[in-house]
Amino acid sequence: MCNYSISELNKVKRGPNRATYNVEEINTILDAGFIAHVAYNYKGKAITIPMAYGRIEHKIYLHGSLKNRMLLALLEAKEASLTIMHLDGLVLARSGFHHSVNYRSATLFTSVKKVENATEKEAALKCVLDYMIPNRWDSLRPMNSKEFNSTLVLELEIQTASAKVRADGVIDEKADLDYPTWAGIIPIKQIAEAPINDVLLPKETQTPEHILEYYNKNQS
Amino acid sequence: MCNYSISELNKVKRGPNRATYNVEEINTILDAGFIAHVAYNYKGKAITIPMAYGRIEHKIYLHGSLKNRMLLALLEAKEASLTIMHLDGLVLARSGFHHSVNYRSATLFTSVKKVENATEKEAALKCVLDYMIPNRWDSLRPMNSKEFNSTLVLELEIQTASAKVRADGVIDEKADLDYPTWAGIIPIKQIAEAPINDVLLPKETQTPEHILEYYNKNQS
Repeated sequence: MCNYSISELNKVKRGPNRATYNVEEINTILDAGFIAHVAYNYKGKAITIPMAYGRIEHKIYLHGSLKNRMLLALLEAKEASLTIMHLDGLVLARSGFHHSVNYRSATLFTSVKKVENATEKEAALKCVLDYMIPNRWDSLRPMNSKEFNSTLVLELEIQTASAKVRADGVIDEKADLDYPTWAGIIPIKQIAEAPINDVLLPKETQTPEHILEYYNKNQS
Repeated sequence: MCNYSISELNKVKRGPNRATYNVEEINTILDAGFIAHVAYNYKGKAITIPMAYGRIEHKIYLHGSLKNRMLLALLEAKEASLTIMHLDGLVLARSGFHHSVNYRSATLFTSVKKVENATEKEAALKCVLDYMIPNRWDSLRPMNSKEFNSTLVLELEIQTASAKVRADGVIDEKADLDYPTWAGIIPIKQIAEAPINDVLLPKETQTPEHILEYYNKNQS
């Protein structure tokens, strides 16, 4: 499948020239983050909460406490919608009307089910953790059964999706081009600062490869 | 009012020791950003979309096209919920279970109404724009009536809210402290890179004070 099908649900109406339904492009947006804003209904009110996620193919995994209100609401609804957004810059035009931001934002519409199978559940938890920081899971103290059993894992299979990407300069009215105000872009990015050892680590502890790799890739 | 009232709607159940209902603390979280994830219902499905916002006292302002599906849905619902989240760091424990992030996240529950009064509407649009980058509005080509009339502005008055803040080190099980894996924090922050002049600006254009101030404050 190259593109998600377009329906009233996911069709981008405002700024359709910035829209994409391409699976690979949307996956690229998903893979650039690890925190999604998940929407759910609580007594008829739509609420959104940030959650860590991981992706395996067309499935998104969320995890949390067995009593997590949002996860339980999603399970009951059997469907979910979530949005992942990366802010890339401020677009500062000569008029307020043409101010904008550069960004990559993907909204997913998914089915929801609980992951019951132990092998799948462990794979999902590894996936979520390694989405936060690659290659970390294998270096950790292995999960015990108490932790495993007290964690709820949901599988959200993407049914359809859309994304919007703006990666452009200032677009002003022609009539405004002589207006004497500064216009341009301020690029924005999220960076990592140097890792800080836990105070309880033995003094001689070396910073491992996967931490250095993450830092080198994400520092400014 | 010092604290928002606590009800089933906004009570933080998971990690209540990290919760706050303090108006000033929540305002500080709101004022550190300009993009919220707004939740809305579309045919019974909860969806969330990122939107620019501004705050004046206990009111949040959103704007968009007159036909914006989300804004129209919020107007019809007469209530909204939105979340503003800042990611401050990865918390890398010795077990997967104790991995976390440092963050500041506020969730608001609001009433919704359309801003009809022209003076209030202009003040709201100025507020939203200056939330993105302070002191910009006054340097812009003034809004014309076509732009003004084609923009829908909503006032979301905060009825109640809650926030969660984690700003802490690694918290591991005592039994795990000797486990031979690296543990610690990787601080994360959002930064601005150097402003890029619009290609159509006259060559001699100086970067104005409000742009330099923003850059100096937000560069790494």
